Amino acid sequence: MRYLMTFAYDGTNFSGYQKQPDKRTIQEVIENCLTKLNGNIPVSLHASGRTDAHVHAYAQKAHFDLEKDVDVNKLCASLHQMLPKDIYVEKIEEVDSNFHARFHVLAKEYIYKINIGKYNPFEREYVYQYNQKLDVSEIMSALHNLEGTHNFKAFTKMDEEKESYERTIYKAEIKVDEANSDILIFSFLGTGFMRYMVRNMVGTLIEVGGGKREVKDIVAILESEDRCQAGKTAPPEGLYLKKVYYENL
Amino acid sequence: MRYLMTFAYDGTNFSGYQKQPDKRTIQEVIENCLTKLNGNIPVSLHASGRTDAHVHAYAQKAHFDLEKDVDVNKLCASLHQMLPKDIYVEKIEEVDSNFHARFHVLAKEYIYKINIGKYNPFEREYVYQYNQKLDVSEIMSALHNLEGTHNFKAFTKMDEEKESYERTIYKAEIKVDEANSDILIFSFLGTGFMRYMVRNMVGTLIEVGGGKREVKDIVAILESEDRCQAGKTAPPEGLYLKKVYYENL
Repeated sequence: MRYLMTFAYDGTNFSGYQKQPDKRTIQEVIENCLTKLNGNIPVSLHASGRTDAHVHAYAQKAHFDLEKDVDVNKLCASLHQMLPKDIYVEKIEEVDSNFHARFHVLAKEYIYKINIGKYNPFEREYVYQYNQKLDVSEIMSALHNLEGTHNFKAFTKMDEEKESYERTIYKAEIKVDEANSDILIFSFLGTGFMRYMVRNMVGTLIEVGGGKREVKDIVAILESEDRCQAGKTAPPEGLYLKKVYYENL
Repeated sequence: MRYLMTFAYDGTNFSGYQKQPDKRTIQEVIENCLTKLNGNIPVSLHASGRTDAHVHAYAQKAHFDLEKDVDVNKLCASLHQMLPKDIYVEKIEEVDSNFHARFHVLAKEYIYKINIGKYNPFEREYVYQYNQKLDVSEIMSALHNLEGTHNFKAFTKMDEEKESYERTIYKAEIKVDEANSDILIFSFLGTGFMRYMVRNMVGTLIEVGGGKREVKDIVAILESEDRCQAGKTAPPEGLYLKKVYYENL
């Protein structure tokens, strides 16, 4: 039986999603709990993709297999009791045995939060504390240039080896947080995002909003396919995996 | 020269405000920075009052003395650079040499945040994750019984020795957070609050809102002057010192 899990995590105290020796990772913590609940028969988690250290998720998705049919609500409740407080399993549902949480992703949405007002110690792990003004209308114009199908090599982690750097961004937006006008929220909806891609786009857009680059530079950066042309990588704590889209789910 | 500092802190990783051997405390961290900036001549911080471990402050106040006249904006900037990210000094101002941050307090406001919706891992250190419904109108009625001048011994830490347990609460309210309807915010404005007093009132009010106690029990609890009559102490992470009031400041 294959199950799909929807879960949130506060990435602050994790070395990212993916298992690594001697590091606290989201994958390992959840797999250990599932394995215990499965009578110590190992359970492997297959997520929609990784997230880096300090990056958060509102609704990450991962599938896993169990030999037996289980009551998903009970499993959810048991996990809630066993898991540390920085992971929250929202839902577990049975899915087709051919379903794959990574290969079947249609689109993903990431958001990035930045504080352009004064420093806020309560947000330091959840909102990038930029603490300087930005020109939001300049950023909006630059965001339009990122929408569509492009080769995003210039915005990907240096030396990242990929078969193709082409991705489609359906929607790239920025808005002011309704609850706090000092917080700007970027959102990116697209077919997929390579390593550091969102953070490199945000880092470059911050330079546009701060007057260090022009809106039209975005097009030149994309065309260069050269990571050195783009801006700094924005820090991880502002980044959230917001939603993963699948067909019929 | 006497200076008054206004500062915020995230209490999560502190063993409370007050210095204690071998513990990370807000007082010690700030005093160490001030002492360094004062050419290693020790500086003592006198706060409006303590806060317990994991309790937060939006605007704690403390005074300290320096032999020389300093540029308060520069001092503020230097502190911002030296202090860890969970403390933020908002403002430093020169005050009269007779001013005392504790003795001259006119009133204080505390707020307490509680989540009555589903568990939220991002709020676990900032909002009490009660995660069950509460009857807000019952709590509102009970809050009225706490307003005024009363002997609050029943709501104070067991065995707390005080000359007087009489305090005045000017305003005791509850409202729904504007940004998130799952979050309720209690607020208490009063002449002063003894140890655990706000958390014991909130813990008792939660029992009223959960149907375990009646509104009128509040009066009986106050009259009993017996800590055992009140409810459980609500956890510290929902509590914030919001404002300290002084005359002419």
